[in-house]
Amino acid sequence: MKKRIRIGLLGFGAMGKVHSYSVNNLKFYYSGLPFDAEIAGVCTTSIEKSRSVCEQFGFDVATVCEDDLINDTDIDVIDVCTPNIFHYETLKKAIAAGKHVYCEKPLCVSAAQAAEIAALARNSGLMCNIVFNNRFIAPILRAKQLVDEGRIGRVLSISSEYLHNSCTDVERPAGWKQDRDICGGGVLFDLGSHAIDLIYFLCGEFASVSGTSQIGFEQRLGTNGLAWNTNADEAFYITARLASGAVGTVSVSKLVNGANDDFNVSIYGEKGSLKFSLMQPNFLYFYDATSKPATLGGSCGYTAIECVGRYPAPGGAFPAPKAPSSWIRGHVESMYGFLNSVYTGIPHSPSFEDALHVQCVMEAAYESDADNGAYKAVKNFI
Amino acid sequence: MKKRIRIGLLGFGAMGKVHSYSVNNLKFYYSGLPFDAEIAGVCTTSIEKSRSVCEQFGFDVATVCEDDLINDTDIDVIDVCTPNIFHYETLKKAIAAGKHVYCEKPLCVSAAQAAEIAALARNSGLMCNIVFNNRFIAPILRAKQLVDEGRIGRVLSISSEYLHNSCTDVERPAGWKQDRDICGGGVLFDLGSHAIDLIYFLCGEFASVSGTSQIGFEQRLGTNGLAWNTNADEAFYITARLASGAVGTVSVSKLVNGANDDFNVSIYGEKGSLKFSLMQPNFLYFYDATSKPATLGGSCGYTAIECVGRYPAPGGAFPAPKAPSSWIRGHVESMYGFLNSVYTGIPHSPSFEDALHVQCVMEAAYESDADNGAYKAVKNFI
Amino acid sequence: MKKRIRIGLLGFGAMGKVHSYSVNNLKFYYSGLPFDAEIAGVCTTSIEKSRSVCEQFGFDVATVCEDDLINDTDIDVIDVCTPNIFHYETLKKAIAAGKHVYCEKPLCVSAAQAAEIAALARNSGLMCNIVFNNRFIAPILRAKQLVDEGRIGRVLSISSEYLHNSCTDVERPAGWKQDRDICGGGVLFDLGSHAIDLIYFLCGEFASVSGTSQIGFEQRLGTNGLAWNTNADEAFYITARLASGAVGTVSVSKLVNGANDDFNVSIYGEKGSLKFSLMQPNFLYFYDATSKPATLGGSCGYTAIECVGRYPAPGGAFPAPKAPSSWIRGHVESMYGFLNSVYTGIPHSPSFEDALHVQCVMEAAYESDADNGAYKAVKNFI
Amino acid sequence: MKKRIRIGLLGFGAMGKVHSYSVNNLKFYYSGLPFDAEIAGVCTTSIEKSRSVCEQFGFDVATVCEDDLINDTDIDVIDVCTPNIFHYETLKKAIAAGKHVYCEKPLCVSAAQAAEIAALARNSGLMCNIVFNNRFIAPILRAKQLVDEGRIGRVLSISSEYLHNSCTDVERPAGWKQDRDICGGGVLFDLGSHAIDLIYFLCGEFASVSGTSQIGFEQRLGTNGLAWNTNADEAFYITARLASGAVGTVSVSKLVNGANDDFNVSIYGEKGSLKFSLMQPNFLYFYDATSKPATLGGSCGYTAIECVGRYPAPGGAFPAPKAPSSWIRGHVESMYGFLNSVYTGIPHSPSFEDALHVQCVMEAAYESDADNGAYKAVKNFI
Repeated sequence: MKKRIRIGLLGFGAMGKVHSYSVNNLKFYYSGLPFDAEIAGVCTTSIEKSRSVCEQFGFDVATVCEDDLINDTDIDVIDVCTPNIFHYETLKKAIAAGKHVYCEKPLCVSAAQAAEIAALARNSGLMCNIVFNNRFIAPILRAKQLVDEGRIGRVLSISSEYLHNSCTDVERPAGWKQDRDICGGGVLFDLGSHAIDLIYFLCGEFASVSGTSQIGFEQRLGTNGLAWNTNADEAFYITARLASGAVGTVSVSKLVNGANDDFNVSIYGEKGSLKFSLMQPNFLYFYDATSKPATLGGSCGYTAIECVGRYPAPGGAFPAPKAPSSWIRGHVESMYGFLNSVYTGIPHSPSFEDALHVQCVMEAAYESDADNGAYKAVKNFI
Repeated sequence: MKKRIRIGLLGFGAMGKVHSYSVNNLKFYYSGLPFDAEIAGVCTTSIEKSRSVCEQFGFDVATVCEDDLINDTDIDVIDVCTPNIFHYETLKKAIAAGKHVYCEKPLCVSAAQAAEIAALARNSGLMCNIVFNNRFIAPILRAKQLVDEGRIGRVLSISSEYLHNSCTDVERPAGWKQDRDICGGGVLFDLGSHAIDLIYFLCGEFASVSGTSQIGFEQRLGTNGLAWNTNADEAFYITARLASGAVGTVSVSKLVNGANDDFNVSIYGEKGSLKFSLMQPNFLYFYDATSKPATLGGSCGYTAIECVGRYPAPGGAFPAPKAPSSWIRGHVESMYGFLNSVYTGIPHSPSFEDALHVQCVMEAAYESDADNGAYKAVKNFI
Repeated sequence: MKKRIRIGLLGFGAMGKVHSYSVNNLKFYYSGLPFDAEIAGVCTTSIEKSRSVCEQFGFDVATVCEDDLINDTDIDVIDVCTPNIFHYETLKKAIAAGKHVYCEKPLCVSAAQAAEIAALARNSGLMCNIVFNNRFIAPILRAKQLVDEGRIGRVLSISSEYLHNSCTDVERPAGWKQDRDICGGGVLFDLGSHAIDLIYFLCGEFASVSGTSQIGFEQRLGTNGLAWNTNADEAFYITARLASGAVGTVSVSKLVNGANDDFNVSIYGEKGSLKFSLMQPNFLYFYDATSKPATLGGSCGYTAIECVGRYPAPGGAFPAPKAPSSWIRGHVESMYGFLNSVYTGIPHSPSFEDALHVQCVMEAAYESDADNGAYKAVKNFI
Repeated sequence: MKKRIRIGLLGFGAMGKVHSYSVNNLKFYYSGLPFDAEIAGVCTTSIEKSRSVCEQFGFDVATVCEDDLINDTDIDVIDVCTPNIFHYETLKKAIAAGKHVYCEKPLCVSAAQAAEIAALARNSGLMCNIVFNNRFIAPILRAKQLVDEGRIGRVLSISSEYLHNSCTDVERPAGWKQDRDICGGGVLFDLGSHAIDLIYFLCGEFASVSGTSQIGFEQRLGTNGLAWNTNADEAFYITARLASGAVGTVSVSKLVNGANDDFNVSIYGEKGSLKFSLMQPNFLYFYDATSKPATLGGSCGYTAIECVGRYPAPGGAFPAPKAPSSWIRGHVESMYGFLNSVYTGIPHSPSFEDALHVQCVMEAAYESDADNGAYKAVKNFI
């Protein structure tokens, strides 16, 4: 008899739906799973929506009160897909209730909050993961292997940029992710958390940062469609010094016409370099610098490693190792890793402490921006 | 109350699983569907496998006898994912039983068989679709719009190539798709059917073809792991004259080291050109030749149309219009179109007559290959 | 005192100018050359043009009579840049006069002519090169090394396509290269000779071919701007069997909107694959298939070898090994190799016998086209 | 009789040779030039080298004393290709001697020096150009047109990076460009000047910058091959606010394994975006954001404008409009524009005042770096 893992889902916006998809499709992507996971109930801001979601997707419990799920003894996991400003209170309650937690990024809206939550999680022994799904795109998993094997050596410099076009049209009303009152920050929280995390994942901690925020349009229509003063960064530029000595930039923006989901990461090491672009999620570009330049180029050049759908077992066979893969596959792998940790009791990354470091980097970047770009040290709460 | 569509699935290899995924995920990809579709039962060659699949994926009926599903009055649709040589008999029975049919390519193993089946389907009034899933990748759907709008004008030439690496390693035992005794043909049937169909879909019927087959390794291990004489084409090269007067090539091969799922199509017209590569399934490359060359290039050049996940309603919102999409999305759209036709009673393409044309092109190509490459007219059964 | 090599240049169209550039710039691209080469005189169809060219480019002799240069005892080399139909008579005279010869492709307009010229050249002991300049683009030079080192193993299949857009606009009068009465053939001679030669250079001789010609516009304006019936192929499609057993296609066309100088070559071997695109002349794409597929792709993938300007000594330093290079660099290297052979007396490829093989392939392709696509053996005159 | 322009060339390193090539090849690249330009003499640090260069390239005067050329009444132009620290004194003398000046970047080693020189040039009425050759690569010329036509609207953000690999190998002795005592700065001067200039050229002046320098290897072998303490920046990261309000980053580095001549520029405007990569110098990528996103992508996407060799008249015909072009073509166009200004008396950009602005940006960046990254205003001397 397989272990059953029942999940209470808080929020059913884009991410709530993506998490539901991930849970629902584990059976296709992985062979021989020893557990069965299912969404047991969903909490949204309207009972009609919650009921409709339950009917459409086959969940049991529809509610507008998250406590109904948090305190449900038949539920093992709380999956947090609500706006950022609500995370802190919810996370405290969920951990207190002894639930494993899967939380969308960013963890909280301040480093102090995040530090408190990370400590609670650490002391609870519960499985708590932050959703940095891009870690689980095949080329990033491969990049991590190459870094860990020393294939790129000491990292000299880094570049990470995450670009969207959602703030380029001043006629389009702001979404809630653009509202600091709901999100606690702007593009730095929304896209920057991903862009910072991949550098942290691959190259280790940040030491200090210089930050510059940008608002492209001072006024636009707000979430209610009425005139509104933009209150959060629409682009953010960081120059960072990592603890390892590497230096580089992290740029995030929703002011980029022509961007779709343009997340580009470059890591330049003494022995090799890595490049990744989310819009071509099937390949990792690896340059082996131990092969020295030669006439006609010799063997030197970036290799487009064909990661495609070649995930490690028990994944990797579906839909086919060679068929082009996509962004959502990273979410599925992230969910699998988390639920497997719930099953095995062995912690899985990225933890809430990982989330805390990213939160501290963002906070230091905002502080630097408020102080004319002067470098600020990244706090270390642990 | 939504209409329920129940599907009997024959075969649960790679394609059976992909079709199941497609049915299972319609609720994520499409909003407000007026029907509920589900796999009701599965037939495989082993009752243990059938039962295991049912348990894992939640299907009701497990059997090794396809008639159990074909004759089940509670089943509306037969989905054929069995090896090619079995299609003919199964299709006759399914149509006779009044089932709508969704059949993996190629339809049959000869043009005569295909013509008979196409006629039966036509006369039945049932919804019958062949699975040419690549028609439903977003860039190909966009290409079809541009062609239909006259944006590329009269097509002058075409190129279609579909390349895999599965026959490059002589140490690897043959899969059943390499065995003519099971498939009735080789790579021409397996990959060529797709490569021919996209040209047919975008540019109309083929008139005549010159064909050349290739076997790269005369002997290898067979499907049973023992020494075996290769009995089917491992690569096939066609030069084609289309009914419209366009000329070009269709090349398919499993002898290509470095290929993953490399399906590349180019269409060159008087007013514009189109290019597509499956390994980058998010963009369609369109050249508008009505913009004449100018100093510094003027406005001339290929535009990488950002199709990404921007499917027409009721699809297009999941997982996000801008997140990179993948091969399997075409299968979901193909299944949606078929099931929607079952719901509405309005026929959907590609029909069995479309499948027949592709079968006739392949048969003419084999005939040409047997006659030293001399051009053979493509039969027209209708 | 450096040896002086004096060149008589026949024709000063696009190629005549390119050859002049090549001679003029050897001193920049190569260090420590033991010879000085210069264009001594030029022959064009108008004495005004010949004089103007001499004045502009510093040549000594201006003439409209090629014999003035062929019989000039102060001239060592005849460089043939005239239309194809004139090559045969010119080449006979130049060889008879004891001149080394550098001849633009194709060598002649028939295999019989080419065989005669190749025999004359062979018996003369003179240095005679055909201009297959694309052999000397850095990535192709690197490809040849990899092939010769066995890095791609037995070649299984090939693909070569050379695409221009010059015949896509029916309003544009035909150039002389489109006129069979001047060129003896159409696009097959003009672009096909290059596309065939690179396969021959990298993979050895062709055994037999199936050919299909295409005229996209039956009528257009002729070279005189008056109505004219197209008399030469505007596109040509070959399926080829090489002597080695490899099979594949060679497609050439001037009917391709969106093409600039799109010359793409793919070679698929048992141990590896190679890809090259002239529009990105700085990289050779090499896939090492001895590195077997692994989880997350392992080390498998195409490496974009950074050939750039890293030519072998005495070239390679100018303008910089790392600065992006271009098409004309291949012409310079071709000219260098030829003139160096004149200096050293050691023959250099591609020889007139190489040119003969390419001529025989083209002739067999035309014969096949005239016989409904039936395969024709490539003649072997030697 | 054509006007003769005689040039005195100071320095014959890589740039001296490139400038010589440019002068020597104007006759190939441009039709009907009304002037003849030639290098009249060369000054290097060794008389043997100067004589050897004269012999090899056909220059008249060989010297080790720049005054010999500066004061030569038969010389019209002084071309400065010496190390940076020498520019200031040389430029003063050349202007005083009434020579037109073509000067390699950076103009000087301080903003104060550059301001003085720019004022001298302005007051002299002489033609003085700084060599920002990348402005003259075809895609950048096209980008400038699109910007000037308002096709990208108000610029929101920018990104410019110029990456080399020359400092990645600690075993390789430093080149003189890495030595602050010779160059007055490090990579910021060498590559940063180009990266800043293209932003300035396309988007206007910089207002303020935050700068971060990096030295990857504290110790390496110096220019003399002995142990040496690195004294200049090997990478430099700028976050910039432009006068227009646009924000973005300029990153330059010689610490990037895998880089060849990787100069990438992105400009994101309200109405469109532009991208350029020097390693693919044939295309400009233009996104027209006035075409709104639509189902299946509509017409939205980056167009790869086929600039290739399509230079404006009197250039553009050689070697062919459609043949792939390269880095050095920009140098030829830069030289042409300068010499044409000498001929016509009509000033040409980039002027020494343009060079001054770039110098001021670099100086502000160094100041910011010395002050913990705090933003510094860019001085305005004019």
